[in-house]
Amino acid sequence: MTQGTPARFDILGIGNAIVDVVAPVAESLVSRLAMRKGSMTLIDADAAERIYAEMPPGQEVSGGSAANTCAVAAGLGARVAYLGRVAQDQLGAVFRHDIAAAGVHFPTPPLVGGAPTARCLILVTPDGQRTMNTFLGACVAFGEAEVDAEVVRDAAVTYMEGYLFDEPAAQAAFRRAAALAHAAGRQVALTLSDTFCVDRHRAAFRALVREDIDILFANEGELASLYEANDLEDALAAVAREVGIAAVTMSEAGSIVLRGTERVAVAAAPAQVVDTTGAGDAYAAGFLAAYTAGRGLAACGRLGSLAAAEVIGHYGARLTRDLRAAAAALD
Amino acid sequence: MTQGTPARFDILGIGNAIVDVVAPVAESLVSRLAMRKGSMTLIDADAAERIYAEMPPGQEVSGGSAANTCAVAAGLGARVAYLGRVAQDQLGAVFRHDIAAAGVHFPTPPLVGGAPTARCLILVTPDGQRTMNTFLGACVAFGEAEVDAEVVRDAAVTYMEGYLFDEPAAQAAFRRAAALAHAAGRQVALTLSDTFCVDRHRAAFRALVREDIDILFANEGELASLYEANDLEDALAAVAREVGIAAVTMSEAGSIVLRGTERVAVAAAPAQVVDTTGAGDAYAAGFLAAYTAGRGLAACGRLGSLAAAEVIGHYGARLTRDLRAAAAALD
Repeated sequence: MTQGTPARFDILGIGNAIVDVVAPVAESLVSRLAMRKGSMTLIDADAAERIYAEMPPGQEVSGGSAANTCAVAAGLGARVAYLGRVAQDQLGAVFRHDIAAAGVHFPTPPLVGGAPTARCLILVTPDGQRTMNTFLGACVAFGEAEVDAEVVRDAAVTYMEGYLFDEPAAQAAFRRAAALAHAAGRQVALTLSDTFCVDRHRAAFRALVREDIDILFANEGELASLYEANDLEDALAAVAREVGIAAVTMSEAGSIVLRGTERVAVAAAPAQVVDTTGAGDAYAAGFLAAYTAGRGLAACGRLGSLAAAEVIGHYGARLTRDLRAAAAALD
Repeated sequence: MTQGTPARFDILGIGNAIVDVVAPVAESLVSRLAMRKGSMTLIDADAAERIYAEMPPGQEVSGGSAANTCAVAAGLGARVAYLGRVAQDQLGAVFRHDIAAAGVHFPTPPLVGGAPTARCLILVTPDGQRTMNTFLGACVAFGEAEVDAEVVRDAAVTYMEGYLFDEPAAQAAFRRAAALAHAAGRQVALTLSDTFCVDRHRAAFRALVREDIDILFANEGELASLYEANDLEDALAAVAREVGIAAVTMSEAGSIVLRGTERVAVAAAPAQVVDTTGAGDAYAAGFLAAYTAGRGLAACGRLGSLAAAEVIGHYGARLTRDLRAAAAALD
């Protein structure tokens, strides 16, 4: 495999394959259940039952951080593949249908006879913030063996979610995918996913970012946590020394994209906030769709902002409108 | 049981317990799949697979016509119970969670070891119309034995959907519930559900309406089909002779409520149409919530219109806003 060989896929996402159960809730429910508002907590099957029983009627939509990124990127015209594990059950069939229907190649076989398909109970408060509780289910059966080497070698950028670091098998899968990608002359991207996830695995993330990551996505809080930095500038200086490209999102303040000493500030696209679920995932999708199409950093950031603005305007983390024309119209 | 004994429930709904799979589609897909736009078609498991494969990514939400009515009525403050059959599977758990979380008493035990929970593939075209394809699954295991006599006797109004007439067992359940309700001095309401459903079972519906129905819900097309009438006035005259109360909905033209020679015209509430799924179900919910609270016919119609306007403003057939204050503010 020669560096720079044309790739069959622009983006390969690897992550936890999850079906979201989304419901609007009052602030008081999040407090009463003692959840950390705005963050993701791992829960077991019993806790999932208990929390679900307290939730109002909801809707089920395919989720998973990297899977959302893949679906959105495909909707923007990128050629996309995804690896992740669902079970052979009804929610697994929903996940498989939705990602395939979004135009994403999804070759991972389902888990048979093990845990059920993962689900994430998402409580959306009136301010649009989402508080997530994930029962990983079949995702824990995703390991090195599930890393399809051919697909990794065939993708210009392999994009992985920080949430993979919560399970040793997934962490091993992550490292194998990164090694395969680099050996094939491809690039590796990572999103830090969640401040608490960074806290849980800071040392591992620091080593990984330094050694293996070409493109890093993070929000301000996650980046500050990674470098235990006191302010944004310190964190930006640290990350610029360690990765080729860093894209740091700051909610309505837009994003900053760094490449060495180059620095681009990107405004947020106008949005009416209904549900912030998937904003970061969509930003990464827009960024990578533009990046793998050979666009400049500013265009990458702007397509990220545009995609994020679309998904926070409705419940659910994937596109409900066709943004291809808008994407093409970016300079 | 004495006529007029205070009832534990205002409304008991009986119907097909279904999880909806809702996706926005282009007009061309509905044509290509040769569907009758705006209507409901019964499909088998194979057809469900085939159609699902053609659908874009969707969302799963609890549905079922009478179940939607129950959930909306409970959201308007009515005391509501529901009877219908799901399987012991993931979609069945979703249905059970959602209707219970809406505040509806749902005592029917799940079907074990039979067909899976029913699903309705709903294609929503850009004009907001929904074209429905129902795989009845576990619903076909709902029969007379599933009619909980105690709950029927304890409900002021037993409300059933015309769709029950598509399965002989459900039709028998319908008749048993009506007989139990009347023997307990309660009232029986029916929605005609769908023009094609009326076509399939016209004779049975005609006999039922004449003999067993106190309150009939229908839209213009369904009523015209029932009486094979050439115009609305002929159909209205026919229905007024046969049922105690008839509520006839006419989309944006509002509704007409008849009781003997009394006739009330009700305007539609202002709405931005996103997805008309459940408009008729929500109208019946508002109407019956007001009716069982002792309100006059005009207030019944207005609460019906208000509930319908809320659900057509978003995807999904159940309330996403609390309408209790608005309901109480109706004269």
